[in-house]
Amino acid sequence: MQKYRKETDLLGTRQIPADSMWGIHTERALENFQISGRTVHLELVKAFGAVKLSCFQTNRQLGYFTETQKVEAIELACIEMAEGLLNKYVVVDSLQGGAGTSTNMNVNEVIANRALEISGKEKGDYTFISPLDDVNLHQSTNDSYPTALKIAAIRMIRQLEQSVLDLQEAFQAKEKEFAHVVKIGRTQLQDAVLTTLGCEMGAYAEAFNRDRWRFSKCEERLRVVNLGGTAIGSGLGAPRQFIFRVVDKLRENTGIGLARAENLIDNTQNADVYVEVSGMLKACAVSILKISNDLRLMASGPDAGFAEIRLPEKQAGSSIMPGKVNPVIPEAAAQVAMVVMGNDVVIAQAAAGGNLELNQFMPLVAHSLLESIELLTNATKMLRVHCIQDLEANEEQCRKNVLNSTALITAIIPVIGYEKASEIVKKAKDGQITIRQAIINSGVINEQVLNGLISPEAVCRLGFI
Amino acid sequence: MQKYRKETDLLGTRQIPADSMWGIHTERALENFQISGRTVHLELVKAFGAVKLSCFQTNRQLGYFTETQKVEAIELACIEMAEGLLNKYVVVDSLQGGAGTSTNMNVNEVIANRALEISGKEKGDYTFISPLDDVNLHQSTNDSYPTALKIAAIRMIRQLEQSVLDLQEAFQAKEKEFAHVVKIGRTQLQDAVLTTLGCEMGAYAEAFNRDRWRFSKCEERLRVVNLGGTAIGSGLGAPRQFIFRVVDKLRENTGIGLARAENLIDNTQNADVYVEVSGMLKACAVSILKISNDLRLMASGPDAGFAEIRLPEKQAGSSIMPGKVNPVIPEAAAQVAMVVMGNDVVIAQAAAGGNLELNQFMPLVAHSLLESIELLTNATKMLRVHCIQDLEANEEQCRKNVLNSTALITAIIPVIGYEKASEIVKKAKDGQITIRQAIINSGVINEQVLNGLISPEAVCRLGFI
Amino acid sequence: MQKYRKETDLLGTRQIPADSMWGIHTERALENFQISGRTVHLELVKAFGAVKLSCFQTNRQLGYFTETQKVEAIELACIEMAEGLLNKYVVVDSLQGGAGTSTNMNVNEVIANRALEISGKEKGDYTFISPLDDVNLHQSTNDSYPTALKIAAIRMIRQLEQSVLDLQEAFQAKEKEFAHVVKIGRTQLQDAVLTTLGCEMGAYAEAFNRDRWRFSKCEERLRVVNLGGTAIGSGLGAPRQFIFRVVDKLRENTGIGLARAENLIDNTQNADVYVEVSGMLKACAVSILKISNDLRLMASGPDAGFAEIRLPEKQAGSSIMPGKVNPVIPEAAAQVAMVVMGNDVVIAQAAAGGNLELNQFMPLVAHSLLESIELLTNATKMLRVHCIQDLEANEEQCRKNVLNSTALITAIIPVIGYEKASEIVKKAKDGQITIRQAIINSGVINEQVLNGLISPEAVCRLGFI
Amino acid sequence: MQKYRKETDLLGTRQIPADSMWGIHTERALENFQISGRTVHLELVKAFGAVKLSCFQTNRQLGYFTETQKVEAIELACIEMAEGLLNKYVVVDSLQGGAGTSTNMNVNEVIANRALEISGKEKGDYTFISPLDDVNLHQSTNDSYPTALKIAAIRMIRQLEQSVLDLQEAFQAKEKEFAHVVKIGRTQLQDAVLTTLGCEMGAYAEAFNRDRWRFSKCEERLRVVNLGGTAIGSGLGAPRQFIFRVVDKLRENTGIGLARAENLIDNTQNADVYVEVSGMLKACAVSILKISNDLRLMASGPDAGFAEIRLPEKQAGSSIMPGKVNPVIPEAAAQVAMVVMGNDVVIAQAAAGGNLELNQFMPLVAHSLLESIELLTNATKMLRVHCIQDLEANEEQCRKNVLNSTALITAIIPVIGYEKASEIVKKAKDGQITIRQAIINSGVINEQVLNGLISPEAVCRLGFI
Repeated sequence: MQKYRKETDLLGTRQIPADSMWGIHTERALENFQISGRTVHLELVKAFGAVKLSCFQTNRQLGYFTETQKVEAIELACIEMAEGLLNKYVVVDSLQGGAGTSTNMNVNEVIANRALEISGKEKGDYTFISPLDDVNLHQSTNDSYPTALKIAAIRMIRQLEQSVLDLQEAFQAKEKEFAHVVKIGRTQLQDAVLTTLGCEMGAYAEAFNRDRWRFSKCEERLRVVNLGGTAIGSGLGAPRQFIFRVVDKLRENTGIGLARAENLIDNTQNADVYVEVSGMLKACAVSILKISNDLRLMASGPDAGFAEIRLPEKQAGSSIMPGKVNPVIPEAAAQVAMVVMGNDVVIAQAAAGGNLELNQFMPLVAHSLLESIELLTNATKMLRVHCIQDLEANEEQCRKNVLNSTALITAIIPVIGYEKASEIVKKAKDGQITIRQAIINSGVINEQVLNGLISPEAVCRLGFI
Repeated sequence: MQKYRKETDLLGTRQIPADSMWGIHTERALENFQISGRTVHLELVKAFGAVKLSCFQTNRQLGYFTETQKVEAIELACIEMAEGLLNKYVVVDSLQGGAGTSTNMNVNEVIANRALEISGKEKGDYTFISPLDDVNLHQSTNDSYPTALKIAAIRMIRQLEQSVLDLQEAFQAKEKEFAHVVKIGRTQLQDAVLTTLGCEMGAYAEAFNRDRWRFSKCEERLRVVNLGGTAIGSGLGAPRQFIFRVVDKLRENTGIGLARAENLIDNTQNADVYVEVSGMLKACAVSILKISNDLRLMASGPDAGFAEIRLPEKQAGSSIMPGKVNPVIPEAAAQVAMVVMGNDVVIAQAAAGGNLELNQFMPLVAHSLLESIELLTNATKMLRVHCIQDLEANEEQCRKNVLNSTALITAIIPVIGYEKASEIVKKAKDGQITIRQAIINSGVINEQVLNGLISPEAVCRLGFI
Repeated sequence: MQKYRKETDLLGTRQIPADSMWGIHTERALENFQISGRTVHLELVKAFGAVKLSCFQTNRQLGYFTETQKVEAIELACIEMAEGLLNKYVVVDSLQGGAGTSTNMNVNEVIANRALEISGKEKGDYTFISPLDDVNLHQSTNDSYPTALKIAAIRMIRQLEQSVLDLQEAFQAKEKEFAHVVKIGRTQLQDAVLTTLGCEMGAYAEAFNRDRWRFSKCEERLRVVNLGGTAIGSGLGAPRQFIFRVVDKLRENTGIGLARAENLIDNTQNADVYVEVSGMLKACAVSILKISNDLRLMASGPDAGFAEIRLPEKQAGSSIMPGKVNPVIPEAAAQVAMVVMGNDVVIAQAAAGGNLELNQFMPLVAHSLLESIELLTNATKMLRVHCIQDLEANEEQCRKNVLNSTALITAIIPVIGYEKASEIVKKAKDGQITIRQAIINSGVINEQVLNGLISPEAVCRLGFI
Repeated sequence: MQKYRKETDLLGTRQIPADSMWGIHTERALENFQISGRTVHLELVKAFGAVKLSCFQTNRQLGYFTETQKVEAIELACIEMAEGLLNKYVVVDSLQGGAGTSTNMNVNEVIANRALEISGKEKGDYTFISPLDDVNLHQSTNDSYPTALKIAAIRMIRQLEQSVLDLQEAFQAKEKEFAHVVKIGRTQLQDAVLTTLGCEMGAYAEAFNRDRWRFSKCEERLRVVNLGGTAIGSGLGAPRQFIFRVVDKLRENTGIGLARAENLIDNTQNADVYVEVSGMLKACAVSILKISNDLRLMASGPDAGFAEIRLPEKQAGSSIMPGKVNPVIPEAAAQVAMVVMGNDVVIAQAAAGGNLELNQFMPLVAHSLLESIELLTNATKMLRVHCIQDLEANEEQCRKNVLNSTALITAIIPVIGYEKASEIVKKAKDGQITIRQAIINSGVINEQVLNGLISPEAVCRLGFI
């Protein structure tokens, strides 16, 4: 038979299963918010653990906790939360109302009950260890929640940064590998001038290089936190020494160069920083989308398309056409990019929707921002492992296109001039011969010179001398 | 010790755990797509079951299946899929590349293996029952996937429609309940003219009434499916009788008035219908956001705000301020609205991103569209149950505001004229007395007449006679 | 020397150039709003004229105007406004604050001064004809502005509908013209099965056909207006007979089947209808974007691309490559589509941002909505005239692709089976011969049968018999 | 009688009015693109002038131009373009297809014809001065267009930066002015704890301070240009010395610290930088929207709202309610913010839509980006001049709210404890007296101490000692 304990809050009393790790505040949140079916992101929970631990330790140093048994139990429980060991008890819906209070209280209750458990006490014995008076001491959701969010975001962005670096390096490896593959460069999807497949890979690598710079800027912004500001940034209810010290402790515990905001009032109410960070993520998403579309295009065919590259075959594509294999990896990456672009719209709207001393839509900001970071991390990894690393050039097709295309002529215009070039193009069309043949027929340059002009070195050379 | 079976596809051979309900195609998809961590929506899986069942039954009627044991097994497996009993085996990532092939193949493989299980055969014995030759017979992902998506969307929209109707009725109940509560109506957040709280609730109800009409239009659009079109809408590989009959069978199995698209080519490649449907969902989201903000505003206070209504108290709001309770339910509803608005951007971009004969981003369309429908269903239910049903008027505050406000004067302008009214306003301000007192002091109308002019009946009366 | 007249409003007195067609309210708006540099859309101004005319005529019938000279002058001035003759005097910024008051007052002032001019009176002689007491009689910005917006939107959507119909017909003409052009159909940008260029054009036509149906639905929604509701929809200050009659008069004057909203309170404050309409426009934009991208893709080349169609050459594309011509028309159309998709985000946010009895962001809704309609009208016309009408098939390339492509095999699988087909594909690849040749070499079907199987009739036939 | 000259391009010959400043390329663009009705932004045209001038001067130094008369004429014409004197002749539609070719050619043709005019030659005498061979020498649209766009963006962002600084300072002035105005701070729109109006103004100032930092980052990014890269970034057709020198000349001419991109291929095809910049602009827009909503809210009333501040009265708000004045300036600012947020969606989509070696949607990027910058500049100026500078505190209302509100109690909790505070709150409610009175009645602290605790100094003090 299920046993119960009684818990009480502002609104009344409730029966809670006696062995429940969470309490009345979490119970109410579970009833109130049955929305997305997704719980709070693991990294946010872990970061919350770090915040709770740091607050506790600061309070302890200031003399607020003295009873040894209690001290050790709370500290251990905070550490477990910070390490993700209590994650399964943080069960409230990610899309909760209330500016994050439900997440904060869920964390507070779990830490308190876990600490009670460690102490050998009954769960729910909040006179010994209280979720509010002990775990939440000198804090408010309004400062602890955004601080935890920023830590989670920084940690996840670091992973993203690594994943983007790996992808960049994969493109750079291809830049070298394909340095000799001369091909048609296209502007506005029309044959334009010669380039190399290596140059194209290098351009993609460079785009991701910018993303990495942006992510490091993101971290700078996210490092400024409002912990200590309590309700609206005035630090009401918190001792000044706590406010001065707690961020140092948090920096120590997380190894992240966090700093207390100079203007805590501002930092508590204005959410533009998340918009800025999401904007950076979107810039990365835009590059992923552009490049994924390029990959799909260059891999189109195999017979009636561009067919300049071959993507690694990842799964059978059709039960109707023998051998059909589709560019499923760039397709998936493109979809992730679009989700991130959509999340950016959501984050901006949520940030703009804040009122006066607080942004009540912080849970949505967290929900969308952390999703964007995670999706980008997964997508860049997927793109690298399942697509770029084993990407192959279809050199024959690239070469055939070059020799067939009017764009070839652009390579020799600097030598023979525009007028003569136009004549050759006309003759090729009239005679239905390749441009290459028409050039040689014209006698203005011989085959060897032509080959030199369309060599990879010539094609990539900056301007003419 | 784990036993394995061998499975083969276009790309090679793999070891699959012998008792796995899914096969090689699903395995590859699991490796390829580690993106969102979310599996395909249950309703999409169930709808896929209905599609598979209908295709199978049509094929059987056309004489394609004759062996009784096999027939019964496949049919039963399809039914189980359609009823959601096999959902846990459909494990591929919701954000997959490949236009839905991975979902289709996961479903095919699970049905085949479940049918083998029912038949008493070994899983993986595809010579007896094949995921491709039997379960996928005369189909392509390109027709079965969007058809399943439309069925899922229709079913979920019907639930949403009911939830919106319930919410509308809850507002209508409040319209009656608050019909007598005269209050200040505001335009541009400035006191304007008198209205009643009932009128406001009635306006909200009316907005949701339009949504219901829109949802029924959505269903009309979604009913037109491309099943039978196979790869690009030409029905290649499918017998004509199958194409003519299969949608009838699907209509029978689902009870939804589905129809085969006249132009299957168009219906296979163009995804504008999902954009239209998402646009309708967004209109609903916009109303939810507007109304949630109104509720938050009218409940602001309790002392230094509008304080015209009292939302049911759902959870404690602060450990710093005694008795603080926040409007968490409208806040959560507002967040859902913003997510739906963001999804609409995603869906439009995904739909616009289709190329030539197919939209390769259908999994993203499905992912976002079904999420939007589900979120709106949950949010409207939450709003009704946890906020509107027990909403209370703060009649005293409404009355106090009316008697204090210059807006009161607008109610008597039709009787005394604009000039006289302006004079009274001036006198009230100069004498620091309420507008009500100034009106009575002025002697132009007596208290009884004034009361009549600001009665609920007078306030709601359309124009003057 | 410039002469001045004095005008007075709530805030004080101003010098206005004596011959100015507008007055003090417009002057203030010009000072306050120097934002977009764009004035209110002509169609909105004209529609406002129709609203003013109808209000005036209704008031007159109810006996509010009796002095003949004045009557004729006001009526004529309203007619001139409705016909767009006074447009140059409506000068306020399109992106104004104030829910449209500045537009309404600019219109009122111009009509009054023009009527004074007609009457032979001095401009500014508002004791004879007043912008407020005469031209704005029994109206508020809150009802006249959205009513005018809806009329403008309906009129412009009708033009759009015609333009989309013309485009649809242009595609249908190409459907017939290209009915015989067999080509590779592609899914996920990979060669899939055969289709015809005619089928593709037909699919585009069908997409636009749905848009037309949607636009007619838009009109249904926009027909419901709140004229007569005055400030918040209660009709305060207006005689009931005016409220009952004025929409009939407006219907008569505009020829549009307008109807008074049953719930004027709702109709005044909720802006979801514009979101719905914009959502429909976005569905059209999505089709334009998808189709423009298809056109760009199929026209890619001329040598190293798909090169299946030739777009009419509209301008020289490069001073570097001889003969380069770019797909500038689909590029421009695609850009319009993206603007409309962006406007949809704006409209939704503006609509959701309304507070209580009014949406204060109506000028932005008007600004973005009318821009979207106009851009779509221009883009569909441009696409038709400059691109589709003179679109040509590159039949030779289409044929070459068909004969070269593995996709050809899919056309004969229904006859020879998947196994045999796979063998032939393998032989073609090994022997480096075309698929066509490999088929004939295989002897399973002769050339005549093959030709039959890849004839336009066979390719477009629905399934097999 | 109109006289004509003949001009010829790749597509044929045309009659051009003999005195036309533009030529055949512009004529065709005018016919092709009748879309937005808006011409290219003045600043883009001026920047294009600077690019042309710098290219010309570099070419001249390299010995490409020697004929004095011609040299002086072209240089002067370029200078005039750079100074905006020829702007009226740049007439092509801002929303053009073709990656900006039409803008580039319009500029080329006008410079050539103006130079011919200066030289005393007939317009159209391109054998003397050619739009292509002289004005466009060693350039492509693909490098000159984005370079001009970046210069225009930098210049406009500098203006924006100044306007945001001015606004920030206006808020800082109010921070000081309102430092003594204690008021209720609200979280989630519910009365929370005390703050000052000065603190609120300071938080707004701080948000705009971040924007300024962001803008300076934007400039860093935009400084990297691809001039010299010609068609795809390889500099094809340009002499290497030109490529090495031209950006130096451009830096000299503009005074902006421009640098040539290290990877010109990347810089020519990837448009993520514009996405990043637009994301920064959006962060500013989000702050404007949030703050505008706060201003509207705090100014709500005058009787039945928050009424804590008084916005300067800018225009009469209603003909129905005497004295109604609306917050039209924040309303207009909010609308601008929403447009910028919508443009951000457009820019991201356009940037992501680029294909291979070029982004063909650059005109849309330019159109939307420059509009966003300009709108933000205008809106921040409007907000400062018409709203913030003359903003007034309603001190009486702020004080009344403080003394009436339960939130008052939070100020003394640090002194009397949570339990006692809760008791006092209960007594105030039961006895229907103000919280202030209840506190004094309770005897726990006297009036003087209470006054100290709710003094501005106490309220703004960080934490307790």
